[in-house]
Amino acid sequence: MNILNGKPIVVNVNGLKIGRGNPPVIIAGPCAVESRDQIIEIAKILKQIGVDMIRGGAFKPRTNPYTFQGLGVKALEFLKEASELTNLPVVTEVMDIKDIDVVYEYADVMQVGSRNMYNYSLLKELGKRDKPILLKRGMSSTVKEWALAAEYIAIGGNSQIILCERGIRTYNDFTRNTLDLAAVPFMQKLTGLPVIVDPSHATGVRELIKPMAKAAIACNADGVMIEVHPNVEKALSDKEQSLTPAQFEEIVLEIERIS
Amino acid sequence: MNILNGKPIVVNVNGLKIGRGNPPVIIAGPCAVESRDQIIEIAKILKQIGVDMIRGGAFKPRTNPYTFQGLGVKALEFLKEASELTNLPVVTEVMDIKDIDVVYEYADVMQVGSRNMYNYSLLKELGKRDKPILLKRGMSSTVKEWALAAEYIAIGGNSQIILCERGIRTYNDFTRNTLDLAAVPFMQKLTGLPVIVDPSHATGVRELIKPMAKAAIACNADGVMIEVHPNVEKALSDKEQSLTPAQFEEIVLEIERIS
Amino acid sequence: MNILNGKPIVVNVNGLKIGRGNPPVIIAGPCAVESRDQIIEIAKILKQIGVDMIRGGAFKPRTNPYTFQGLGVKALEFLKEASELTNLPVVTEVMDIKDIDVVYEYADVMQVGSRNMYNYSLLKELGKRDKPILLKRGMSSTVKEWALAAEYIAIGGNSQIILCERGIRTYNDFTRNTLDLAAVPFMQKLTGLPVIVDPSHATGVRELIKPMAKAAIACNADGVMIEVHPNVEKALSDKEQSLTPAQFEEIVLEIERIS
Amino acid sequence: MNILNGKPIVVNVNGLKIGRGNPPVIIAGPCAVESRDQIIEIAKILKQIGVDMIRGGAFKPRTNPYTFQGLGVKALEFLKEASELTNLPVVTEVMDIKDIDVVYEYADVMQVGSRNMYNYSLLKELGKRDKPILLKRGMSSTVKEWALAAEYIAIGGNSQIILCERGIRTYNDFTRNTLDLAAVPFMQKLTGLPVIVDPSHATGVRELIKPMAKAAIACNADGVMIEVHPNVEKALSDKEQSLTPAQFEEIVLEIERIS
Repeated sequence: MNILNGKPIVVNVNGLKIGRGNPPVIIAGPCAVESRDQIIEIAKILKQIGVDMIRGGAFKPRTNPYTFQGLGVKALEFLKEASELTNLPVVTEVMDIKDIDVVYEYADVMQVGSRNMYNYSLLKELGKRDKPILLKRGMSSTVKEWALAAEYIAIGGNSQIILCERGIRTYNDFTRNTLDLAAVPFMQKLTGLPVIVDPSHATGVRELIKPMAKAAIACNADGVMIEVHPNVEKALSDKEQSLTPAQFEEIVLEIERIS
Repeated sequence: MNILNGKPIVVNVNGLKIGRGNPPVIIAGPCAVESRDQIIEIAKILKQIGVDMIRGGAFKPRTNPYTFQGLGVKALEFLKEASELTNLPVVTEVMDIKDIDVVYEYADVMQVGSRNMYNYSLLKELGKRDKPILLKRGMSSTVKEWALAAEYIAIGGNSQIILCERGIRTYNDFTRNTLDLAAVPFMQKLTGLPVIVDPSHATGVRELIKPMAKAAIACNADGVMIEVHPNVEKALSDKEQSLTPAQFEEIVLEIERIS
Repeated sequence: MNILNGKPIVVNVNGLKIGRGNPPVIIAGPCAVESRDQIIEIAKILKQIGVDMIRGGAFKPRTNPYTFQGLGVKALEFLKEASELTNLPVVTEVMDIKDIDVVYEYADVMQVGSRNMYNYSLLKELGKRDKPILLKRGMSSTVKEWALAAEYIAIGGNSQIILCERGIRTYNDFTRNTLDLAAVPFMQKLTGLPVIVDPSHATGVRELIKPMAKAAIACNADGVMIEVHPNVEKALSDKEQSLTPAQFEEIVLEIERIS
Repeated sequence: MNILNGKPIVVNVNGLKIGRGNPPVIIAGPCAVESRDQIIEIAKILKQIGVDMIRGGAFKPRTNPYTFQGLGVKALEFLKEASELTNLPVVTEVMDIKDIDVVYEYADVMQVGSRNMYNYSLLKELGKRDKPILLKRGMSSTVKEWALAAEYIAIGGNSQIILCERGIRTYNDFTRNTLDLAAVPFMQKLTGLPVIVDPSHATGVRELIKPMAKAAIACNADGVMIEVHPNVEKALSDKEQSLTPAQFEEIVLEIERIS
């Protein structure tokens, strides 16, 4: 760790500051962008609730090759439109070096998903760009591997990195993953980077998202990222872990009280 | 789950109420009772800081047979004396059916440690007693196995059970165990029992105890149990995860603010 | 590890030698003794197939308190009768210090199950007896913890210990546990004790038992322990992982070819 | 699983047949190609010992960005030369879509490493090529995820896939990973593909490689892949798990006896 050596780094997303000393950011949105109407509708609702950034998948890394893989560039266009209407910055995943240019054009923050945390070619390439990166923890990565993945990005010159704890794979079967909150203060100190928490993927269970979001904020996470869908029952992916806007609003209120 | 079926159960420890609707309890004390002076000194300090109950090991289940195994009955006497001086109830572990009678005599709450969560003979025997039981989660138990271990106790007639999440065994190597906070709201709902959290054993790392204690309270745990030693450098066991009274006091203040 | 320090130990069960230099032992029998007829029938069949020892549970540590818990002392009597009819030694589990005397009376080898590997009170007590102990690995124990559990027995004076690898708990969901065969040569060298393998509990899947039994023998395990039931469809426990006598006989033939 | 549905598939590498009914293949070579001399020397030795294919890393996915990352295309040229001198086919890893063309030119089998098992963009691209793929299991992938990763390749038209079990991440600390041999027969049946085993990465411990290689063959693996270095003490990566040619030759002899 030559570059990310613990000296605090504040990430700046179009003026929104994330990291040490700044209030926690709230990022929300659907798992996948499913249509222009869907993303614009939810963006407006989220704006009203008071989120800081919207998320939505354009390129979806799906375990099963026969399931919905995202709308691709079309989704990026819809996200951009939603972003301009609401003035909320957008975070979306980039899965492939060949897509970096187009994602860079439309997104404010480029996300590296759990499945790509060890994709060092992709990380190195992203290190050469001047937009912030959201780096999710690999599904069974150690904290050291995760820090070194961030270092791969930083080596290229880009230290604007937000780490995202999203649960690790364990023998547990009542949640999709096991949220490892101790990694939040640990990684903040080790790397100096902001660390946010994704309780939606960490638990995969609707009613556990609120308590885990509150726990994340209480242990000083720099933000949370939560899946919200305007019409949960019709979600094309991650249905069981998506919240309705009303459920999500409750969480935002509780988070504000804690922080 | 015929008995512990989700209907809320409030545990009553000499008038101290634990569980739904009651403020979180704070339990603290050294890993092991090491001498009369040690436990009395720390009990007085903890009383002043405002804890609700003291803990201390008399019979210690140690992985290595050549390490300190606890002072046994002598320790129980010291605990009792400390308890009477401070008016704080005492929780201590019982490892063996043959020790139940003597632990029952001295303790206010009898603890079943992680290593004994599957010791069904012990659980059944404890179910026949009329003092509250603190049941730690097995180091790799599923939530279902944990709930059924509690049911083993309840079948005997004793439903005064406090569950304690203390981290699970994963591939993680920066903490001793991985704290599984999602188990807190899950087990509260499934069993109806109060669930407390032990951030000391969960992390095994001094500086991670405070953030995890705060996270526990934020997700609505019914209490925390924390290792505190009057003279950390001389602790005979669990030195790396024991807090000084001053470090612990900070946690108590933060917990009060959150809850 | 003062006592079990790597010097080879051969365990002697009524003249049957287990460990370094001796051919692998084959232990088989039903999960639980369900009736006199059942255990006598299967013992005779197993004798003919050529097993070295029979197994059968009298006291069953069941996760669910509402399921069949074993026939207790009655089962021990049936096992003894089956043993005398076939001249095969018997291994059966002891769960509780208070049952040691009665199990000692009927069994040739006393088994400590996975759930009791950390039950140090039980281990110490068994160390004072002069019959061999079969010590199963705890479901998530490290090799060091397992070795130290054996040391707890040996300290009492009894080094006639057979270790049994039975799979560890991981995120895997296609098998009940994950068979950790590397632990076989590792523990043989570390402790000097014989190490056998239980592919039935390790996999929990009928068709995976044969390949794993063969793999165990190929990496020099000192034996295998396999669940066989005379009437698989009517088994009261572990039905999915019990073999018919015919399926089992195939395994014995293959094992003989490899070893 | 529409394509890889259990119907046996034999993979053909320049006439060498891998899979159901064919004798197990032995693949060996250094972790990384370090120089022209090193790879040619070891290739000649391995040829004499009787291996079927050589391996060697040109592009190395290293956790730490500051360690040796492989010689790249230079290494591919050396591998090709070694291959032509010995008439042994070559397997080497491709980490990045942009390198597929060059790896395709030099290699006989293109390897997807554990860190890229979820790299669906890469898998899809490889599915369009007409050379066999060696697909390592992700370090914590389920068997289903692994099978679906293979399906991602097959969808493109390339079903010439060799699966490679290389251990999974668990709490175990005496080996680098935990070899999951039950996955061998399971995946053979589920997908129809040949499954080989890499005991070097699975254990990371020199003396455990031989017993695990033997176990793999005994449970019917379609081959093994083992790290061998002509000068172990000078290896630039994976030193602790590399075998000397003499140690490796012993394994080959034992494998031949078992199979």
